[in-house]
Amino acid sequence: MRLGAAAPSQIDDLVAADRILASHEIFDAYGHVSVRSEKNPRHYFMSRSLAPDLVTARDILEYDLDSNVIGATGVALFLERFIHGEVYKARPDVTAVVHCHTPSLIPYGATDVPLRPMFGLAGFIAEGIPVFEIRKTAGMTDLLIRDAARGRALAQTLGSKPAALMRGHGAVVTGASLPVAVGRCVYLDINARVQAQAMALSRNVTYLTPEEGKISVADDYRRAWELWRRQAMGH
Amino acid sequence: MRLGAAAPSQIDDLVAADRILASHEIFDAYGHVSVRSEKNPRHYFMSRSLAPDLVTARDILEYDLDSNVIGATGVALFLERFIHGEVYKARPDVTAVVHCHTPSLIPYGATDVPLRPMFGLAGFIAEGIPVFEIRKTAGMTDLLIRDAARGRALAQTLGSKPAALMRGHGAVVTGASLPVAVGRCVYLDINARVQAQAMALSRNVTYLTPEEGKISVADDYRRAWELWRRQAMGH
Amino acid sequence: MRLGAAAPSQIDDLVAADRILASHEIFDAYGHVSVRSEKNPRHYFMSRSLAPDLVTARDILEYDLDSNVIGATGVALFLERFIHGEVYKARPDVTAVVHCHTPSLIPYGATDVPLRPMFGLAGFIAEGIPVFEIRKTAGMTDLLIRDAARGRALAQTLGSKPAALMRGHGAVVTGASLPVAVGRCVYLDINARVQAQAMALSRNVTYLTPEEGKISVADDYRRAWELWRRQAMGH
Amino acid sequence: MRLGAAAPSQIDDLVAADRILASHEIFDAYGHVSVRSEKNPRHYFMSRSLAPDLVTARDILEYDLDSNVIGATGVALFLERFIHGEVYKARPDVTAVVHCHTPSLIPYGATDVPLRPMFGLAGFIAEGIPVFEIRKTAGMTDLLIRDAARGRALAQTLGSKPAALMRGHGAVVTGASLPVAVGRCVYLDINARVQAQAMALSRNVTYLTPEEGKISVADDYRRAWELWRRQAMGH
Repeated sequence: MRLGAAAPSQIDDLVAADRILASHEIFDAYGHVSVRSEKNPRHYFMSRSLAPDLVTARDILEYDLDSNVIGATGVALFLERFIHGEVYKARPDVTAVVHCHTPSLIPYGATDVPLRPMFGLAGFIAEGIPVFEIRKTAGMTDLLIRDAARGRALAQTLGSKPAALMRGHGAVVTGASLPVAVGRCVYLDINARVQAQAMALSRNVTYLTPEEGKISVADDYRRAWELWRRQAMGH
Repeated sequence: MRLGAAAPSQIDDLVAADRILASHEIFDAYGHVSVRSEKNPRHYFMSRSLAPDLVTARDILEYDLDSNVIGATGVALFLERFIHGEVYKARPDVTAVVHCHTPSLIPYGATDVPLRPMFGLAGFIAEGIPVFEIRKTAGMTDLLIRDAARGRALAQTLGSKPAALMRGHGAVVTGASLPVAVGRCVYLDINARVQAQAMALSRNVTYLTPEEGKISVADDYRRAWELWRRQAMGH
Repeated sequence: MRLGAAAPSQIDDLVAADRILASHEIFDAYGHVSVRSEKNPRHYFMSRSLAPDLVTARDILEYDLDSNVIGATGVALFLERFIHGEVYKARPDVTAVVHCHTPSLIPYGATDVPLRPMFGLAGFIAEGIPVFEIRKTAGMTDLLIRDAARGRALAQTLGSKPAALMRGHGAVVTGASLPVAVGRCVYLDINARVQAQAMALSRNVTYLTPEEGKISVADDYRRAWELWRRQAMGH
Repeated sequence: MRLGAAAPSQIDDLVAADRILASHEIFDAYGHVSVRSEKNPRHYFMSRSLAPDLVTARDILEYDLDSNVIGATGVALFLERFIHGEVYKARPDVTAVVHCHTPSLIPYGATDVPLRPMFGLAGFIAEGIPVFEIRKTAGMTDLLIRDAARGRALAQTLGSKPAALMRGHGAVVTGASLPVAVGRCVYLDINARVQAQAMALSRNVTYLTPEEGKISVADDYRRAWELWRRQAMGH
């Protein structure tokens, strides 16, 4: 496929992100990750509609921020690509976007219990992880972000936060880079399970304060990214 | 074995379904999956009595809807094959049937807590997943569907629903195709675990409404099936 | 080593049992399984002191029922071999004995909640799984069955039951054959996890009745054994 | 790198410890293990800043007890190396130190529920596992042990105990040898999960008494270490 403006390393990183998220069971057969084009910030890259664990560089497509594919025809696209385009439009600080259905996150999207930060690598949760209730703007639906209007509503709930849960569906996770977005997914998942276990043990749980969370988020998950990449790509 | 009326691709899909369900731990050494014959809808295909992960095309047998095997002698059959025959009789819309003992499902069959849909890919749960209590029709038993009468009682509890739990035993899951029946098994399992976690977090859980469930069930799990098949068949 | 009276297939089955129990995480680096000699019912076979996943036929030793090793010197023996000898003495019906520390079983040995049967393959639990409290006969100890007296006390608590939990330690599981003892370990583990999940969902759990349990125990786990053996032995 | 005073077997054991802790998911991409030099007890060995599963003998560095690296320049060091130096200073009995972020341990560091010993191999927990609250000495931080002062405060909380939890962060675990420190990590993890499950079943949990714990700790995990080493090193 034609990826005129793509830096090769950006495409390689995107493929690695797909595989890492599959190998960590953040993704199953569904879910997608994108990266904003380095050369044209009004474009992003993401695979065609395909199970993430099968993605190779040849499956990557280029999209504009209305989530129209560029220079490819007759190829199946993710129905929910609007999540990516609308988040990039609303958030110039965001370079990478993940949409996932990770089982550990679903309960926090479906109850009145917010995700709260349990440890430093999940310190970004202290900023607050809002929950998107699609019923408020779209009524009874199949819960999918099938068009730009739903994408905009989701981006509005996300606001300036690192991630938002989607009730009855999953989550959208952002980052200033692919390693940050992927690392946030991994540590959202671990935090969700640790928090559930802490709440089962006791009503008195000490979460990170907003200040502790803020100071902790300096980590860019680079050490983890290098390990995960080697493990997921099999070398 | 003689499979006069079998379309080869149907047999290949059935073997793949056995392996996929084993690799996802829906099956352990026990459990079975069948498919209605494309060429003769009064017949179905299923393996001889064998652990699902060991099934190959040569192990597939053909049965009539009274669950008599066709053209094979001296081969061990599943005691509970009547589940399949009786469901196919009662449900012309059903093309594939799974019987499993998935651990995550047992608690919902043994308590007064119904399975309820937590996310879109499990939206079919909104139709309701009834529980079959064998004591009501057969009293104290080994809980197995050893004959056509028990099979009919189970099919009656199943009614027009996508699946039924079997108290103290497991579940029967149906589909209009093998990918749908297999996908329903996988997402029943995930939903069971997610729902338990949500209920542990809070008494206020937002489930999909019947309408949301209905709109969500359009997915035929085809993308998942292709991935699972590649993973389970090792290529 | 000298195994004068051993039937080769019995030794092969014992090695397979070690590997199966390790691959199912019934054992970790600790735990042991034995089988009563077919040729001399006053003798049993068990490996030298070794992690079960490393056991080969050359590591199997022969013991009398006082747990003295026969015809081997200078080899490290399991401290807790007396579990096996004393159970074989007290239970002529028993052909195989497992001692394990499976994590899922420990909570039922340390609380007032008994294991109860959740599904047919665990129907043997309906006979009752007693808990051995070593404090009653030996006071404050390292909880290990280091001698025949402790072994006899454990065998007394076991009585005629299929298994007993050991408080703060693990379990002893018996069978009329290696496949039965191994199958009981696997389904005790699954039942423990399923029962915990059911109790978390609801106070109204329907367990198998004693009669259902009794009728269900006809299964000799032979189909499972053949699968597990192939998987654990890597062919 | 120059490891003038290192016994080769000590370095090999340290690399094995890194791999074992990664393969048991005590470590993920983060965490570190060190060993006190046999030849110079005022020095210790630990890898450069690297994911533990990637560590080889060539990545091992030598440090003094102020956690200055010896004879290496331009290499990235663990920010939290002060944990190791300060524990070795305060505890002449300690030969190996692990710092980990094991998810099962975090809830016990963040609640008022102490870890208590559930079985003999975790008997060392009976000595008491204190919780380090960094807020008490350093206020609002990123929770990291970035300097000697924080390391000393942690060592003070640890006192003479085998391990301490670090609120919002993880744990520090010590041992008189690498196998003991590694074995304690593995059984702390199992105990944390078993205790949570026991507490979910019942309010009446029988823990090991201090005396039972003390008698139980004779095990040096040597049998486990040999197995884990073979498994983690792939031979």
